Amino acid sequence: MRKLHEECGIFGIYDPNGEASKSTYYGLVSLQHRGQEGCGIAVNKDREIYHYKDLGLVNDVFNQQILEDLEGNMAVGHVRYSTTGGNLRENVQPLVLRYIKGTLAIAHNGNLTNTYELKKELEKTGAIFQTTSDTEIIAYLIARERINTGSIEDAVKNVMNILEGAYSLLVMSPNKLIAARDKWGFRPLCMGKKGDAIVFASETCAFNTIDAKFERNIKPGEVFVIEQGKTKSITDNCSDKSHLCIFEHIYFARPDSLIENEVVHETRKRAGMFLAKQSPVNADIVVGVPDSGLSAAEGYSEYAKIPNQMGFVKNRYIARTFIKPNQKERDTAVKMKLNALSNVVKDKRIVMVDDSIVRGTTSGRIVNLLREAGAKEVHVRISSPPFLWPCFFGTDIPSRDDLIANKHTIDEIRQMINADSLDFLSLENLHNIAPNSTCGFCDSCFTGNYPINVEHLL
Amino acid sequence: MRKLHEECGIFGIYDPNGEASKSTYYGLVSLQHRGQEGCGIAVNKDREIYHYKDLGLVNDVFNQQILEDLEGNMAVGHVRYSTTGGNLRENVQPLVLRYIKGTLAIAHNGNLTNTYELKKELEKTGAIFQTTSDTEIIAYLIARERINTGSIEDAVKNVMNILEGAYSLLVMSPNKLIAARDKWGFRPLCMGKKGDAIVFASETCAFNTIDAKFERNIKPGEVFVIEQGKTKSITDNCSDKSHLCIFEHIYFARPDSLIENEVVHETRKRAGMFLAKQSPVNADIVVGVPDSGLSAAEGYSEYAKIPNQMGFVKNRYIARTFIKPNQKERDTAVKMKLNALSNVVKDKRIVMVDDSIVRGTTSGRIVNLLREAGAKEVHVRISSPPFLWPCFFGTDIPSRDDLIANKHTIDEIRQMINADSLDFLSLENLHNIAPNSTCGFCDSCFTGNYPINVEHLL
Amino acid sequence: MRKLHEECGIFGIYDPNGEASKSTYYGLVSLQHRGQEGCGIAVNKDREIYHYKDLGLVNDVFNQQILEDLEGNMAVGHVRYSTTGGNLRENVQPLVLRYIKGTLAIAHNGNLTNTYELKKELEKTGAIFQTTSDTEIIAYLIARERINTGSIEDAVKNVMNILEGAYSLLVMSPNKLIAARDKWGFRPLCMGKKGDAIVFASETCAFNTIDAKFERNIKPGEVFVIEQGKTKSITDNCSDKSHLCIFEHIYFARPDSLIENEVVHETRKRAGMFLAKQSPVNADIVVGVPDSGLSAAEGYSEYAKIPNQMGFVKNRYIARTFIKPNQKERDTAVKMKLNALSNVVKDKRIVMVDDSIVRGTTSGRIVNLLREAGAKEVHVRISSPPFLWPCFFGTDIPSRDDLIANKHTIDEIRQMINADSLDFLSLENLHNIAPNSTCGFCDSCFTGNYPINVEHLL
Amino acid sequence: MRKLHEECGIFGIYDPNGEASKSTYYGLVSLQHRGQEGCGIAVNKDREIYHYKDLGLVNDVFNQQILEDLEGNMAVGHVRYSTTGGNLRENVQPLVLRYIKGTLAIAHNGNLTNTYELKKELEKTGAIFQTTSDTEIIAYLIARERINTGSIEDAVKNVMNILEGAYSLLVMSPNKLIAARDKWGFRPLCMGKKGDAIVFASETCAFNTIDAKFERNIKPGEVFVIEQGKTKSITDNCSDKSHLCIFEHIYFARPDSLIENEVVHETRKRAGMFLAKQSPVNADIVVGVPDSGLSAAEGYSEYAKIPNQMGFVKNRYIARTFIKPNQKERDTAVKMKLNALSNVVKDKRIVMVDDSIVRGTTSGRIVNLLREAGAKEVHVRISSPPFLWPCFFGTDIPSRDDLIANKHTIDEIRQMINADSLDFLSLENLHNIAPNSTCGFCDSCFTGNYPINVEHLL
Repeated sequence: MRKLHEECGIFGIYDPNGEASKSTYYGLVSLQHRGQEGCGIAVNKDREIYHYKDLGLVNDVFNQQILEDLEGNMAVGHVRYSTTGGNLRENVQPLVLRYIKGTLAIAHNGNLTNTYELKKELEKTGAIFQTTSDTEIIAYLIARERINTGSIEDAVKNVMNILEGAYSLLVMSPNKLIAARDKWGFRPLCMGKKGDAIVFASETCAFNTIDAKFERNIKPGEVFVIEQGKTKSITDNCSDKSHLCIFEHIYFARPDSLIENEVVHETRKRAGMFLAKQSPVNADIVVGVPDSGLSAAEGYSEYAKIPNQMGFVKNRYIARTFIKPNQKERDTAVKMKLNALSNVVKDKRIVMVDDSIVRGTTSGRIVNLLREAGAKEVHVRISSPPFLWPCFFGTDIPSRDDLIANKHTIDEIRQMINADSLDFLSLENLHNIAPNSTCGFCDSCFTGNYPINVEHLL
Repeated sequence: MRKLHEECGIFGIYDPNGEASKSTYYGLVSLQHRGQEGCGIAVNKDREIYHYKDLGLVNDVFNQQILEDLEGNMAVGHVRYSTTGGNLRENVQPLVLRYIKGTLAIAHNGNLTNTYELKKELEKTGAIFQTTSDTEIIAYLIARERINTGSIEDAVKNVMNILEGAYSLLVMSPNKLIAARDKWGFRPLCMGKKGDAIVFASETCAFNTIDAKFERNIKPGEVFVIEQGKTKSITDNCSDKSHLCIFEHIYFARPDSLIENEVVHETRKRAGMFLAKQSPVNADIVVGVPDSGLSAAEGYSEYAKIPNQMGFVKNRYIARTFIKPNQKERDTAVKMKLNALSNVVKDKRIVMVDDSIVRGTTSGRIVNLLREAGAKEVHVRISSPPFLWPCFFGTDIPSRDDLIANKHTIDEIRQMINADSLDFLSLENLHNIAPNSTCGFCDSCFTGNYPINVEHLL
Repeated sequence: MRKLHEECGIFGIYDPNGEASKSTYYGLVSLQHRGQEGCGIAVNKDREIYHYKDLGLVNDVFNQQILEDLEGNMAVGHVRYSTTGGNLRENVQPLVLRYIKGTLAIAHNGNLTNTYELKKELEKTGAIFQTTSDTEIIAYLIARERINTGSIEDAVKNVMNILEGAYSLLVMSPNKLIAARDKWGFRPLCMGKKGDAIVFASETCAFNTIDAKFERNIKPGEVFVIEQGKTKSITDNCSDKSHLCIFEHIYFARPDSLIENEVVHETRKRAGMFLAKQSPVNADIVVGVPDSGLSAAEGYSEYAKIPNQMGFVKNRYIARTFIKPNQKERDTAVKMKLNALSNVVKDKRIVMVDDSIVRGTTSGRIVNLLREAGAKEVHVRISSPPFLWPCFFGTDIPSRDDLIANKHTIDEIRQMINADSLDFLSLENLHNIAPNSTCGFCDSCFTGNYPINVEHLL
Repeated sequence: MRKLHEECGIFGIYDPNGEASKSTYYGLVSLQHRGQEGCGIAVNKDREIYHYKDLGLVNDVFNQQILEDLEGNMAVGHVRYSTTGGNLRENVQPLVLRYIKGTLAIAHNGNLTNTYELKKELEKTGAIFQTTSDTEIIAYLIARERINTGSIEDAVKNVMNILEGAYSLLVMSPNKLIAARDKWGFRPLCMGKKGDAIVFASETCAFNTIDAKFERNIKPGEVFVIEQGKTKSITDNCSDKSHLCIFEHIYFARPDSLIENEVVHETRKRAGMFLAKQSPVNADIVVGVPDSGLSAAEGYSEYAKIPNQMGFVKNRYIARTFIKPNQKERDTAVKMKLNALSNVVKDKRIVMVDDSIVRGTTSGRIVNLLREAGAKEVHVRISSPPFLWPCFFGTDIPSRDDLIANKHTIDEIRQMINADSLDFLSLENLHNIAPNSTCGFCDSCFTGNYPINVEHLL
């Protein structure tokens, strides 16, 4: 039941009251949906940086004692996405390093597109890489830039000119906490306040947990600096156009998060409404696939005036299972996570709303759950367009070969997933799900219109 | 954010194809909501019983290797409810024991009410107790009865005459798998089939995962025996009246489970509908408290024709946290788990539907989440009557002193939880939520009408 | 490289200063050589008994927090011997139980010989067994006896009349700490004092760690009671004859322990001296097999006036390894633990002194280490007679079929282990290794002269 | 009971039969005495490098599954020394990195003395450091050098010209396995063969475990290269003079290891003999402090013709303890590890032989153990001269302030440790303990005669 994975969530805080690590713990728990592979916290105490990180969920890696040992006034934290297998302990962030000006801790969400050139260039000057993450490249560039640059923030700013791709960054130096975002604005990053503490997070849901108030988004291209409680915004790199990953709205972000002036739940609902308008169906009930399809289902239902009903129950206790199912058992694996409510769906004509179809196999299994439970008709409505292109900006949307929509017509997909009808949100409608949004969007996974040249990666 | 806990879920299987432990693993994962403290599986291989159990979630206690080592044709499994602290490793089930006729494995869901007398009686004959669970008492009585009784099933049957209270039992001997249920029918237990395999589980949701089909409920008082694939039902202890814990419908069971002919989601929805009829309110939206309030909210919404909206987002990754919050931090603890969707609730008059109020503190915090998010009015509707009496039949509804409804009028509770209005499902309506049910109900926590004399426990 | 295993070490303390659990921890670490499979501590705080136990070494099972939580004025602890595989968590001690008079914690070292009859008898009255240890049988008998007996110590005393076999016991009740030893005195148990604290341990080496002073041995058959600091000795069951396992001196006990008036190192040395006298050899050096052969080698060397040299180095870091070697790799497994010092042994005629030969395979491998390192001659001298009979009193000397000396002459064994000559300590000499000892010995593994009728077990 | 720690042991193997990781596991277990903090193995399979490493003992970090996953024909492994506290997971080796020419795995034993300059120089070109180990510096330099150098071995060779200090290195590239040693030869590194496999290890004891035969030492300054089974030795950096850390003989190495043509046990014995000659005493017995004092005690005894007796028993099960003793409990901590055999030492005049005195506190406690056990006189003989200078070449001999011999005369130390007499091996004698050795020695911790300029570090 493999879904797409967001590559990471980040959190940072300047807190003169010394509760930095505890708030970061709470923040990371709130961002856990953005990454379950590993996590870490680095704190700054009297200009010294201490850190702890490991593979695992936030509540498995940390405990009371470890948190208490991480005392300090500034902190950055990171959650990393979940993969199966592989010894990737080295990749767990924040990356803590010593360089010409002392110590840095870097937490990074995103993916560079000129990794190869940057890495080659660095290797030519003798760089060694101990991780497989872009974060290390960024760290090198900052370190190199800092040699001839008067401040860490200027080094960050200058480096941004040669970085291509997606990155939301938190950088903690002995004296400063810096937030920065690529000029395209691919990945979200926002700022909040709680008393005299200043907080950064990938999503605003992390603010709610600690009672911080959302202030504003870090602007695409902006470098925001905190030093001793004083703040400074460097906007030299800012651009007029922005390209927030629209899939943050469709799938990645938590529905209660506010992203660029739009609450995710609302944009998803709107996607559902457009879907209902665009692709109506004569049905008895609307059923969302939990959890990511629920908001869009609510929207579809409202527009279509077809009752929205709880058609699935999701098992809340399997963030992970050790079972590696063979082909025959993959159905069981889906059934461990999801069960159809037969009383609800039996003999019903159903609009099943989900967020996306990647390879098609999971969708087929979910349709099948409804059929086995007695559904008369299953009309699948997807709250995003078909995936046609890979993503290079921090998600794991796979290569074109693995994207079912690249090889099959919608009707073929419909047959493969055993649906009575199937439709995807149109591109036009997609672009209208966030009318109040202050940003532009990247929709390249649907259109191939990459905001950056990625020919070398295709 | 403490809720009531069900004390355990049980699962058993006779499977001539030797996949008993794997199915039991899947079954226990499906029953995980009934207990998160510990779990175990005992299998029968060639008349020998092997077992593995420990504190922790099913996916933490077991791994591929352990499951493969537990090969066999019969198995019983158990999940135990979650407590904080305490070295209760001894209490993890199944209880595996050697007695005069060989080996037994017992998995038990419920609570006896004549524990004290039974224990005293046993102690007088020299019994020693290594656990604090009633299961051990039952095991002793069966072992003692078996001395002069020709079969294990007759021993079980006879012992049932002296057991008072709630128990759904699975007993595995070298040759047989036995399911039994107290004559009052307090705790659910059902039977299913998958090919020539026969399965038992606390709830039918465990059947769906492994593609077994629900056959029927074990009747109150029934002893059901499987030996070499042949089955036998002993109904000597069966009675006409039954008293299924009505809180299984309201809160404990998974919404997709079928309990005594009624799907839980439907009974909860009906509770919501009655609540809407009984206690209407002029409101803009209905919001269910996830996850247990969602079905009733759907019902309230349907009846009241007020839109049912997703007003809360629940964090899916905190089955547990190591943080032991002090008084000041309890709000944060609730906020780690639940966040209100401000766009949805802002300036709205809200019907907030939840399943119950125990002490009132958590309800107050949840109302507060809505208020902070901008709700104009919060009308709390509870899909069960006020708790007035403790439960002695396998749940941890606390003593009268801790039940807020015992000390305060509904209006006082309303003020304490900061609601604009508050109502509970009436007793009369409660009794109508499961019209198709084939059983009677125990509602003693609301009425004090205990089906068994429990004066000595009050 | 499998050696014989002692089945357990026990420790108990009455300490009015409340440091009971810490002292027990230190004591168990000192007794760790008597058992590495699991361990546990039970403490008595204000008449309540709390405990913690698990599989693993003392330093793996316990930590600072757990120890601090186990506050109290009395404690009993236990280390259990190491086996490979098997889910024996249930068997870890102390056994903590509730019975007619409250709570008991029992720690037991030994093995009963009338287990079968006792168990049958108990099962006839309905007993159930949750462990496979004799301790549970003893617990049942005490509980049953206590019904009609005025005190726990009298119950212990009375039960001793029907127990046959080896047992050194510590029993902690809400008010009392009791030490008892079978009337044959198979397993050691001694008493010490530290200020107003009174301590019991299997071996005196546990006293040294905590600065307690050895007082005296618990006599065979004695029941020693501490209540509120007052002591009482019940000697009704004491007998004139005693039968301490002579293998405690040869192998099990730590060389620094005082057992029945003889320091183990001295008795081992004496065994080596007798061996030198009994079986002289024209050799260049004496080499002891570490660690258990070192004392006897010192004795052989002193008597024979042949230099005692360090011929082997033992790896200090492999209490355990996860490698399960196949036949081909067993040599490597021995080499992980032991290496011959080629400079020392090259071209030398060597007397290699070890404590015993069970199956002969390990001895052969050790001789081979010397040969590969260049030894000219290897004369094996064993500081005990050949094993001819199994042990039923708490060690795992195997059945006759597995004892090499039962099937082969000494010369055949010599050939099998590739030694130039081989001799075992004579029975006569064995009986003289502890001239100052206040006890008689059990030598049944060498002679078949069992102090108790064990015909039914052979 | 803190002793000095060696900073690491290394092991490498080229094995065309594909058993590289298993042999490395065995080798690291044999080298475990050189480091207990962490360990790791990197293997080369078809030119790809995979690795696994973590904090902990070899038998705790690895298991059967992990080893089997590390299949390959070449491997390097590392054990790291034990410290208390500190999150040093980053420092665990081998260091695996990607650089301009692909992947490298580096295992390093030693310590550089021009770290500061090298680091500064690297930082000036933008280097970032993720560990606090010198290994990373070496890796950088190799990577930088490789840019303009035709082969990895030439890069290693060239880098050696700017490295000052102690280093024995194993470098594994996609095609090659390289062993190198600093031109001073501070740390040992030797080569062995087993069939067509070629093995490197810090000490020969690792060869014995896997039945490899010692071939020769890697020469100071040598770069030894294996590629596809073909070997090449580059000796451009070799020098005539060498400076093996003499403390390898006195304390660090395992007694069964052959170091530069001398078996460690023999050199220690010789130290003991010289000590006996240099500082005779009228005594009854010689007692070595286990384990490192045992060889020297044997030597003292042989020369002085005073019987060498086992006066201490060491607990074999406490590689670690979680107890952090307060001042009052430090005696207990020593007693957990060591106990005096009172029967042996009572009323005796004792020569107690140990390898060194650092701060004096542990020595005082050990003398005290003998006194409490009844020793009449305790004459302490130390098989090395007094520590007067810190070490910068890979051991943790502390700063001058912490070295007792810097602040006190020998007689003062004698009084502080409560000995009747005290003497240290003279420098002259120290230089004669390894007459057959093919190398020179570094004795700077005793003399301050550092083979390299370390003024900047003092």
